[in-house]
Amino acid sequence: MKLVGNVLYGQSGGPTSVINASAYGIIKQALLHEETIKKVYCCHHGIDGILKEDLIDISSKDNLSQLELLPHTPGAAFGSVRHKLKDIKEDATEYQRILEVFKKYNIRFFFYNGGNDSMDTCNKISLFLKSASYECNVIGVPKTIDNDLPITDHTPGFGSAAKFISTSISEIGCDASAYDQGRINIVEIMGRNAGWLAASSKLACLSGYGPDLIYLPEVPFSKEKFIEDVKKIYAKQNRCLVAVSEGIKDKDGNYISDTGTLDAFGHKQMGGVASYLVSLFSETKLKTRAIELSLLQRSANHLSSKRDIDEAIEVGKRSLEAAISGHNGKMIIIKRISSKPYGISYEEVDLSLVANVEKIIPSDMIVKEGNNVNQKFIDYALPLIKGENNAVFIDGIIQFAKFK
Amino acid sequence: MKLVGNVLYGQSGGPTSVINASAYGIIKQALLHEETIKKVYCCHHGIDGILKEDLIDISSKDNLSQLELLPHTPGAAFGSVRHKLKDIKEDATEYQRILEVFKKYNIRFFFYNGGNDSMDTCNKISLFLKSASYECNVIGVPKTIDNDLPITDHTPGFGSAAKFISTSISEIGCDASAYDQGRINIVEIMGRNAGWLAASSKLACLSGYGPDLIYLPEVPFSKEKFIEDVKKIYAKQNRCLVAVSEGIKDKDGNYISDTGTLDAFGHKQMGGVASYLVSLFSETKLKTRAIELSLLQRSANHLSSKRDIDEAIEVGKRSLEAAISGHNGKMIIIKRISSKPYGISYEEVDLSLVANVEKIIPSDMIVKEGNNVNQKFIDYALPLIKGENNAVFIDGIIQFAKFK
Repeated sequence: MKLVGNVLYGQSGGPTSVINASAYGIIKQALLHEETIKKVYCCHHGIDGILKEDLIDISSKDNLSQLELLPHTPGAAFGSVRHKLKDIKEDATEYQRILEVFKKYNIRFFFYNGGNDSMDTCNKISLFLKSASYECNVIGVPKTIDNDLPITDHTPGFGSAAKFISTSISEIGCDASAYDQGRINIVEIMGRNAGWLAASSKLACLSGYGPDLIYLPEVPFSKEKFIEDVKKIYAKQNRCLVAVSEGIKDKDGNYISDTGTLDAFGHKQMGGVASYLVSLFSETKLKTRAIELSLLQRSANHLSSKRDIDEAIEVGKRSLEAAISGHNGKMIIIKRISSKPYGISYEEVDLSLVANVEKIIPSDMIVKEGNNVNQKFIDYALPLIKGENNAVFIDGIIQFAKFK
Repeated sequence: MKLVGNVLYGQSGGPTSVINASAYGIIKQALLHEETIKKVYCCHHGIDGILKEDLIDISSKDNLSQLELLPHTPGAAFGSVRHKLKDIKEDATEYQRILEVFKKYNIRFFFYNGGNDSMDTCNKISLFLKSASYECNVIGVPKTIDNDLPITDHTPGFGSAAKFISTSISEIGCDASAYDQGRINIVEIMGRNAGWLAASSKLACLSGYGPDLIYLPEVPFSKEKFIEDVKKIYAKQNRCLVAVSEGIKDKDGNYISDTGTLDAFGHKQMGGVASYLVSLFSETKLKTRAIELSLLQRSANHLSSKRDIDEAIEVGKRSLEAAISGHNGKMIIIKRISSKPYGISYEEVDLSLVANVEKIIPSDMIVKEGNNVNQKFIDYALPLIKGENNAVFIDGIIQFAKFK
């Protein structure tokens, strides 16, 4: 029998430029199914919103008026959270509370939008609700700028971050070529264990101002080799532009920049690797500069990839359709059919297959020397940054959706 | 008698998003005066290009084909330089060399595009050529993201940097509001002695995600007051967004972040003030993040203000017209007629009046407590960020002009 009831949508983990575009896809699609879905709720701060019964009813007139701005809004419009559910065998309290709230609000379709940690949370909820015989179709909605979810060709959020990174590196590279005697500019890019984002700086080469060297977490980092690489380039062209992933590690697997603190999921917190690398040249007379793209790479919605936004919306819509078709414990993935011309299809996989698995850059996309990526990476990544977002500006001020 | 001869245009100092837009205005206008101007040359790296006789002839077919991309190109398309001409009484060698090259290339119209240091260089060349009885009309073309040139209401380059800063702060602020328990985010913005750029972060408040506190070089900085300000905000809203100028100084005028090195003009080099301010909270349990907008604020051409680009082009055109009308030793300024509606006129001033003078934020634009700017600043700055640049992207890759 077909389920009838209400929708609950939650956001989790670090925001991306397009997480709200997936929210848009789900909500808009839900509003088309009046007979099946009575109300659409959004968690205020993900799982925490459920536990605190802090839900946003999207169907109010004020909230509905904000919908069209959602795909142009960075951050997590409904609030995000980093909350790791305990193993149910250890402590079932939070699971019971979730069930209670789901029952109270008659939640029959639940969507959780996040990266691999969030897919784990989503999978746990799906399994628990099944075991409690509460009928609710649970769908994980992928997003992460890191592009490290397995199985899917790429993840909504990556294309936009890649577009910000490649465009910014082009602009930095162009600016940095202004002087005859240039600097060593080292740009630090997010990516804990997977170097997809740092690698995407390679696309800036197509503008004529790309990085000379790219260092990835996938390749053991040697300080000596790095200094040698940079000096060689500098000697040739009076400047050197380096892209480096925050998560580069030495041959023993130790992060080059380890601040010693852990996040809520127990991951090590990185920081300042570009500053550290710059300090390696302090004995020389070479002029250096460390640039950290920081939060901008995940929040610069105005520079999103149109294709990424469109796909994020589509993933949202298909997640909704999957749920009302009776699918449960699944995540929508993107399968690439071809790169030239770009063609994809959408499929479903079991949440258990993606939860907690990280996808790194395959070695055949990395040059032999380990300090750059190759044409195969360009062919993979270039289609993902195609098209420009039409950010909404009024009198020069960018406009974002706001919900109550 | 009307001068007939060739044009020479040079770029100097730190690039802005729109210095190339002024170049575009001058070159396009010069091409309209075939009877007066035979050739248009650009210095490769400003004064250095003259001294080394390294000039780019813009009239080649390849170079002409690049012109329309100029207003969309960051950096200094013809190469910039930081070269301080010595006092002529001390050493006239470089002046004599400049005269030699001007004679050889029959340069009768010279344009130097830069900030206050460059206007000093331009003024020196103008005075020298007069004293050498070499007929050449010299015009300084203003540009600086810092907005610190005197007399002119604002400077080409400021509006675009202000637009990048306000948009980025909006996006950072939106992202930072994703979590219930937020951070203290401290964003470092360029500006050595004038806080115009840091102040422009205020415009982000109109998006709903502006900074809570703004610290400027114009107001003596107290660490104790700063910590107190931040803690008060944090206690109220679980997060705090701070914009800080790199050039904040203590009550004795010492830079809070002084790296101890000097640039070619003898100015102190700043760096890392946000990291320093973040370190002031290391004893607390508060989560912090330092964000440096770095080179992006002057190179993010894709986020330029349309009005700024249009004005930069117009200043270029009027500079050319001034020169061929026989004006010499002048700089075009922008005079504001009204803010609502926005209206300006263009006028000319003597270079000697702008060389080496810095304009800071007037105290009536700063709140009494000294940790923010007020409505008067918003009224001043808001019109300057109006309109969006149409950056040129092909297959997702941003396109810039390139000259040979």
